[in-house]
Amino acid sequence: MSEKVVVIYSGGMDSYTVLNKAVREGHEVYALSFNYGQRHVKELQVAADVCAKLGVAHKVVDISAINQLLSGSSLTDDIDVPEGHYEEESMKSTIVPNRNMILLSLAVGYAVSLKANKVFYGAHSGDHAIYPDCRPEFVKKMDDVCRIANYDAVKIVSPYLNNSKIDILTDGLKMGLDYADTWTCYNGREKACGKCGACQERLEAFELNHATDPLPYE
Amino acid sequence: MSEKVVVIYSGGMDSYTVLNKAVREGHEVYALSFNYGQRHVKELQVAADVCAKLGVAHKVVDISAINQLLSGSSLTDDIDVPEGHYEEESMKSTIVPNRNMILLSLAVGYAVSLKANKVFYGAHSGDHAIYPDCRPEFVKKMDDVCRIANYDAVKIVSPYLNNSKIDILTDGLKMGLDYADTWTCYNGREKACGKCGACQERLEAFELNHATDPLPYE
Repeated sequence: MSEKVVVIYSGGMDSYTVLNKAVREGHEVYALSFNYGQRHVKELQVAADVCAKLGVAHKVVDISAINQLLSGSSLTDDIDVPEGHYEEESMKSTIVPNRNMILLSLAVGYAVSLKANKVFYGAHSGDHAIYPDCRPEFVKKMDDVCRIANYDAVKIVSPYLNNSKIDILTDGLKMGLDYADTWTCYNGREKACGKCGACQERLEAFELNHATDPLPYE
Repeated sequence: MSEKVVVIYSGGMDSYTVLNKAVREGHEVYALSFNYGQRHVKELQVAADVCAKLGVAHKVVDISAINQLLSGSSLTDDIDVPEGHYEEESMKSTIVPNRNMILLSLAVGYAVSLKANKVFYGAHSGDHAIYPDCRPEFVKKMDDVCRIANYDAVKIVSPYLNNSKIDILTDGLKMGLDYADTWTCYNGREKACGKCGACQERLEAFELNHATDPLPYE
């Protein structure tokens, strides 16, 4: 059944796959991106281009004013982005306090305004170790509260909640998606660095899918 | 026990009472106000003045950029603020979609940054009829998710959740608080209108407490 849905879409490969999945399921999609002062603001341009190609509505909301509240993450502050494997302790410095609750609560507000009853969100199992707000129990409890917070219930849909990034890529390649239309690197330079945790995780997903990443690397 | 706590503080009489309560309990208080493009932005100036008097840290975060997502409320849009009794159907036009989840998620992010473990929030029973996100089940479920969304649990504290605005005022008068230091009216003019639902509810609370509202009315 075609429904009006909001998709939280960062421009990265996970939410790109979720976005395309929602479009192919025939939904009336409203993509929503956030500028929260991240270094990798480049992904927002990628996101806008993709939405134009797909012909889906796209909003970018600048919430960078909230950074004065959320200090201490290397994604927004002047702390070096750590290199090395994604699950290492150092990746904890990339945590933005309460990020996903903030983004989901805004997306749910948008859904209520649109009279949409679903918010799609690309949480996956690879993030469970580091980010508490990507874990199934978090998504479950957010879904619980989103059902009663407004007159109309909003459901949080996380199609890859129990899949790895490798699985997401497998699914996307099966759909014939072009991952040149995504941006993953935490450093916002012209080419991807290939060294930060996000790049390494991405490259590993391609390798395990016996596929070649179409993005240029430094 | 003195703790570091965040208090969501609008400048209105409910959160003013909660703020003073937290200060008197000996906590290290960080007051947090939001400018979300409300007409009654005057309450933010009142809030700043009160925090200066009390000597508590105060942040005002401008989140008005999110209004492009949250359309349809008379508090932020060009819709007339309804007059008449607070619990009437027409007051539903004052609902900002998912407002309290958004504000609480930001306050919780702030608490995590500060290493504070509590967020005080002035929900009360008078709002239960109109605003789903002021009801005990909402606060309970938000508290559930806030305990697991970050490495450190944050607790939502709503001291007046099951009390009326009349009870809040009773408590505040007992504490000797000066309600001239609050702003309630939904219209942002020099004096309170006395006619909007918020003013009427306020005046009723004073009447039932056999007290006189120190604010000037039009």
